Amino acid sequence: MKTLTIIKIGGNIVDRPEELDLFLEKFVNIDGPKILVHGGGVMASEMLTKLGLKTEMHQGRRITDLETLKVVSMVYAGWVNKSIIAKLQKIGCNSLGLSGADANSVPAVKRSPEPIDFGYVGDVDPQKINVGFLLSLFGRGITPVFCPLTHDSDGSLLNTNADTMASSIAIAMSGEYYTKLIYCFEKEGVLYDVNDSDSVIPLITKSNYTSLKEKGVIQDGMLPKMDNAFYALENGVSEVYIKHASNLGNDKGTLLK
Amino acid sequence: MKTLTIIKIGGNIVDRPEELDLFLEKFVNIDGPKILVHGGGVMASEMLTKLGLKTEMHQGRRITDLETLKVVSMVYAGWVNKSIIAKLQKIGCNSLGLSGADANSVPAVKRSPEPIDFGYVGDVDPQKINVGFLLSLFGRGITPVFCPLTHDSDGSLLNTNADTMASSIAIAMSGEYYTKLIYCFEKEGVLYDVNDSDSVIPLITKSNYTSLKEKGVIQDGMLPKMDNAFYALENGVSEVYIKHASNLGNDKGTLLK
Repeated sequence: MKTLTIIKIGGNIVDRPEELDLFLEKFVNIDGPKILVHGGGVMASEMLTKLGLKTEMHQGRRITDLETLKVVSMVYAGWVNKSIIAKLQKIGCNSLGLSGADANSVPAVKRSPEPIDFGYVGDVDPQKINVGFLLSLFGRGITPVFCPLTHDSDGSLLNTNADTMASSIAIAMSGEYYTKLIYCFEKEGVLYDVNDSDSVIPLITKSNYTSLKEKGVIQDGMLPKMDNAFYALENGVSEVYIKHASNLGNDKGTLLK
Repeated sequence: MKTLTIIKIGGNIVDRPEELDLFLEKFVNIDGPKILVHGGGVMASEMLTKLGLKTEMHQGRRITDLETLKVVSMVYAGWVNKSIIAKLQKIGCNSLGLSGADANSVPAVKRSPEPIDFGYVGDVDPQKINVGFLLSLFGRGITPVFCPLTHDSDGSLLNTNADTMASSIAIAMSGEYYTKLIYCFEKEGVLYDVNDSDSVIPLITKSNYTSLKEKGVIQDGMLPKMDNAFYALENGVSEVYIKHASNLGNDKGTLLK
């Protein structure tokens, strides 16, 4: 089975031009078909502030009213996505920017307003992802680059967590490929001690994940990322990595298996 | 030879949700393969104002510095393009939003800063347009929807006049199809008397265009649109129409031949 690599890059890296350029160079050097999923939350929050709109979060997830949806669409699908595409074209990677609405690639369902009304936020069913379309892009040597937007098939865009977008796409593609999912962010990996970047946990299995959670080693912002990762592993994805964006292409970071 | 229809919709329509919805219904009903090119200049100017940036124009064309490029990318490729895609998906048209950077579909050359420095503005050579990629989309039943952005293949997006974008794509596709180019905007067509919407000129040929210009009937904002149209006709496009967006699908408006 051929290998497909799905890489998620966080908003903190996307917002720093030099780090982004270095990351994209490493991304282009990955062998075989690949998919990039990017965030942009930091820039979206900045743009909301500039426009006098409030950023409302609940447990690290953005509450998206219509005005916020407009701004995140502008930032994610407009500036961030298209800037990445232009940069990739420069360095020889023929890429195509996508929201989940484009070619109906990632349809979603608007989240129930109970118990928390997140507004225009979409949850993805990996089985609905348009795998055939993505395969046709690979067939033409085109690399898809997703922003974290989906749609409800009823005329509305939906904001979707970029980690979930990446894991859903990885799950959907795992019937066709040996699938590696790599979360790149601004830390070295999952750390024993959050204040010590040298304390990377090299390997986490389902069984020691439970024990690390019980001991309180893994907490807060890392929990949804880890839950996404293990959900992906249980649903067909072969390997998941959590690592610093600058370590894409080497074996540093945390492997989840 | 099969017919391909390329339709350009102006920023004034894109900005009015009800008119846009009506237009998109008509667009979807056009038989055969089709391509939509949209503007968004009105909304871009509004967003520039909200962000405290100035809109600088020269002879009706926007001067695009880096901050302006960021805003037009957000508005054109983000909110406008993705909103249209979500709406088209709702009404059964499987569409894909594109800038010229995506899949290197429309590469461009940054305009010389002499005699006027327009900044990040790109001119398109129709012969460089990625016809094969667009044909592959038609082959999968996908309708491309372009925002007026291109790229310089050196890492930068470029702002491109939407009328020119539409005519360039029409010229590029005219080797493969009998090509109809339709400019939809907020007027009934080319008018004998700009104050009388009933005075539509039904047919303009190259020879009476010259005479209409000499008489001063056609002037100002209509001139670049007409020049684009005749350039397209001279370079392979079979028919060009200028009409009100609400008349898409009927025979009202001006035909250029």
